[in-house]
Amino acid sequence: MSRARKGTARWHQYMADGKGAEALMTMLAEDAVFHSPVVHTPQVGRGKVFAYLDAASRVLGGQRDFTYVREIIDGDQAMLEFTLTLDGIHINGVDIIRWNDAGEISDFKVMIRPLKAVNKVWEGMAAMLSAASPPSP
Amino acid sequence: MSRARKGTARWHQYMADGKGAEALMTMLAEDAVFHSPVVHTPQVGRGKVFAYLDAASRVLGGQRDFTYVREIIDGDQAMLEFTLTLDGIHINGVDIIRWNDAGEISDFKVMIRPLKAVNKVWEGMAAMLSAASPPSP
Repeated sequence: MSRARKGTARWHQYMADGKGAEALMTMLAEDAVFHSPVVHTPQVGRGKVFAYLDAASRVLGGQRDFTYVREIIDGDQAMLEFTLTLDGIHINGVDIIRWNDAGEISDFKVMIRPLKAVNKVWEGMAAMLSAASPPSP
Repeated sequence: MSRARKGTARWHQYMADGKGAEALMTMLAEDAVFHSPVVHTPQVGRGKVFAYLDAASRVLGGQRDFTYVREIIDGDQAMLEFTLTLDGIHINGVDIIRWNDAGEISDFKVMIRPLKAVNKVWEGMAAMLSAASPPSP
């Protein structure tokens, strides 16, 4: 099984198991980088990536109809496409993930469509991140 | 070579060759579907998909620093990631493409980040599409 296939299976397990903080932390490389759908500047380091992914998995993955609908997996990278609705707004997005030699997530990028959905996710993430810790998204 | 690998090579050729209208038209399936980064509703049929892709390849691909920076290719699908700047705004996006048995593009989805970039692309596409034909994006 390729690195990305193993990593994808582990990611789905994490999402299915109720998004445990410890499980998420152990999946992340120390020098992991997160690229938000909203802001240009990457977030560097396990702690920051954790904060964003934890917030995202609660805002998005917390919705009852959150579903992964498509996967494109190639070597050490995968694109996982998802759909959900949030306050009646259709959200369609992708997680683009890269894993390192140790099987840890080294790079995680999220993109969202359509425009309305980006604005909606932005609201939800800002509320979640400002409640959790000082840095704003 | 997999279907998506062949299709990706052909797509890059089209972009490099100056985005010829005829070349684009022959790449598209009659029942092709386009999913815009801005609007939820899919655009169905070769003519509509052509209009959007032609506009997008001019608005985005027309920028001097437009570059494909990453590919994830798997079976009949590919994710091609690109970057460019438009009026000083950093744009990062993906083309998510599926090819049919005949090697034609059957599904084409675009997502853009960050938020500022989605708004910028929206402006450019609206101007391009309203100049070209009646339907607005």
